Amino acid sequence: MTQAFALGIDIGGTNTSFGIVDRRGQILFQGKMSTTGHKTVQEYILALKAVVDVLMDEVGRDNVKGVGVGAPNGNFYTGEVAYAANLPWEGVIPLARLISETLNKQVTITNDANAAAIGEMMYGAAKGMKDFVMVTLGTGLGSGFVANGMLVYGHDGFAGELGHVVAVRDGRPCGCGRKGCLETYASATGIVRSAHEWLEARTGETLLRRDKNALTSQHIYEAAVQGDAMALELFEFTGKILGQTLADVVAITSPQAIIFFGGLAKAGDMLMRHVHYNMEANMLRVYKNKVSLLYSALPDADAAILGASALVW
Amino acid sequence: MTQAFALGIDIGGTNTSFGIVDRRGQILFQGKMSTTGHKTVQEYILALKAVVDVLMDEVGRDNVKGVGVGAPNGNFYTGEVAYAANLPWEGVIPLARLISETLNKQVTITNDANAAAIGEMMYGAAKGMKDFVMVTLGTGLGSGFVANGMLVYGHDGFAGELGHVVAVRDGRPCGCGRKGCLETYASATGIVRSAHEWLEARTGETLLRRDKNALTSQHIYEAAVQGDAMALELFEFTGKILGQTLADVVAITSPQAIIFFGGLAKAGDMLMRHVHYNMEANMLRVYKNKVSLLYSALPDADAAILGASALVW
Repeated sequence: MTQAFALGIDIGGTNTSFGIVDRRGQILFQGKMSTTGHKTVQEYILALKAVVDVLMDEVGRDNVKGVGVGAPNGNFYTGEVAYAANLPWEGVIPLARLISETLNKQVTITNDANAAAIGEMMYGAAKGMKDFVMVTLGTGLGSGFVANGMLVYGHDGFAGELGHVVAVRDGRPCGCGRKGCLETYASATGIVRSAHEWLEARTGETLLRRDKNALTSQHIYEAAVQGDAMALELFEFTGKILGQTLADVVAITSPQAIIFFGGLAKAGDMLMRHVHYNMEANMLRVYKNKVSLLYSALPDADAAILGASALVW
Repeated sequence: MTQAFALGIDIGGTNTSFGIVDRRGQILFQGKMSTTGHKTVQEYILALKAVVDVLMDEVGRDNVKGVGVGAPNGNFYTGEVAYAANLPWEGVIPLARLISETLNKQVTITNDANAAAIGEMMYGAAKGMKDFVMVTLGTGLGSGFVANGMLVYGHDGFAGELGHVVAVRDGRPCGCGRKGCLETYASATGIVRSAHEWLEARTGETLLRRDKNALTSQHIYEAAVQGDAMALELFEFTGKILGQTLADVVAITSPQAIIFFGGLAKAGDMLMRHVHYNMEANMLRVYKNKVSLLYSALPDADAAILGASALVW
C-alpha cells in the first residue's frame, strides 16, 4: 500500500501547528494548539497526540508514512531539542523519540526555520534557488541557511542560529543567558521590548494610550499605520538592527535572497523598508543591489508545516 | 600525453606565491614575487609570466594542464577580481582572462581563502571534514566556508568575506570604505594599527622603544615574547575582537573546526588563547566546547598554492 501522506508539525514558542500533507505539498487537514501551558513535555505530547490522531484518522492512520517536526533548536542528526530559549522545556529533550513512541510513527526533526526553508525551497518563494536564507520573525528569530542547494546543518546539526548572533555588544539580556542577541531586538517580542523600554525612558510619551501590559507587535503595527510617531520609530529602530546584521550575514554566505516569515514579517514594508535601507547601507560594495528581500510565498504556518512534512519523504 | 602538473598561484596583498604541483599535492617547484610595485595589472602579469615561465619549463610547458589562482575577492564564476581593498588594482579586473591570454593556459580563479580551504580539505588539517571555516590572517582577513563538504561560493561567487563583517559598529575606517570591519582589527596590519593608536593615545608608553614607523606584527610578537606589557595587551585585544566575531560565525554555520593560516596566525597561542577564550565566552551554550581551533597543517604558502592548483583538476 502506498503511504501517500505525511504529518508535518511546526512547534513555535507560542503555538504548535500541524497538518496532513500529500506528496505534492497539498495540506489536506490542519490544526493548531498552544505550545505553552502543559506541565511537562510528556503532557504536551499527549495533548498533541489527541489532536493529530483525529487528523490522521481522516486519511487513515496507516496511510501516514511518517512525521516531520520543525522545532526551535531541533537537531536533524540527534532528534533532540537542546536548550531552546523559546520553548517551555529545559535542557536536552529527545523530542523525536518521545513523539515517535507516543504516535507510533517514524519521526524526523529539524530546526523550525530549517523546516520553513525546505518548505520555501520545495513549494514557495525559494523555488529553484541554491543559495538563500530563511528568517522567521516570531516569538524569537529563527533562520535556515541553504548553500549549494543544501541546508547548512553544521557538523552537529545546530547551524542557523542567526537569532543568537550578537547584534548589540553588551545589549539586552537574552533568554539564552547572553546579551545583545539579534532576537532580543528583531522579533515580535523584541519590538515589544523596545516599546516598553522607550515608554519607561521617555516620560510622558505613550503609544496611542494603549495599556502597556497588553502590548503586542500587532498593536505597534496598528499604531504605526495610524501614524503614531513612536510606533513608526520602533519599526525604524528594529529594521536598522536587523538590516545591519543581515549585511554581515551576506558577507558570509552571499545569498540570492533573504526570505521572511512569521508574525513580525506581516508588518511588511513598515519594517522591510528599514531593513532594506540599512542592509544596503552597511553592505560591502560587491554585494550591493543583489540580494532580494522576499516574503514567504506560502500562507501563514504552511511553509513550516510543508517543510516539516517534506522531511518525511 | 598526460598533463600531470598544475600551476597554482596565490596572490596576497603583499606577495604572490606560486608553484608547480602534481596530482598528489606535491609541490615540485615554487617561487615568490611582490604583488605591489607594478604600475598596472598588465605589468604585474608580465612580471609574473617571467617567473612562472621558468618554473613551467622545468616540467615542460605542455605538461602543465592549467592554472589555478587564489586572489582576494577572486570570483570563481566570473574569473574577475572586484574591488579588492588589499590589492593595488581598482575596480573590476578580468584577472583570469588576462592571465590566460598572457600564459596561454586555462585559468580558474577563486578567493585566496577559498583556495586555502580547498588545500586544507584535500591535503591538510581539514582532511575528512565536511563543515569548517578557513581564516587567513595576513595583510587582511580572508575566509573560506565549507558546508556539507562543499565550498560556499554564494549565488554570485563572492561569499566568505568574514574580514568585512562589522566587528565594531562605527569602528576603524576600512579600505573597503566602511567602518569597523573585522580585518581592521584582526590581521597583521590590524594589530599594527592598534599599536599605533595606543602609542599615540598613551603618552609616554613605548613598545620596547621600537621605531613606530617600521612596526610590524612580527615586532609586536617578539616584544610580547619578551614580556612587553603593551604587546601582550595588543594580542589580548586582537584575540578578543576575533573571538567575539567567531562566536557569531559559529551560530550561523556551526563548523567542526576553524583553521587559521597566515602571518598573524604564526603568533600561535599568544593570539589563540585569547581567541579561544572569547569565542567560548560569547558562544551560545549549544556550541560550547565543540569547535576546534586549528592551525594550517601545510607549511607557509603551501595551502594556498595547493588549493589554487586543485582548481585545475
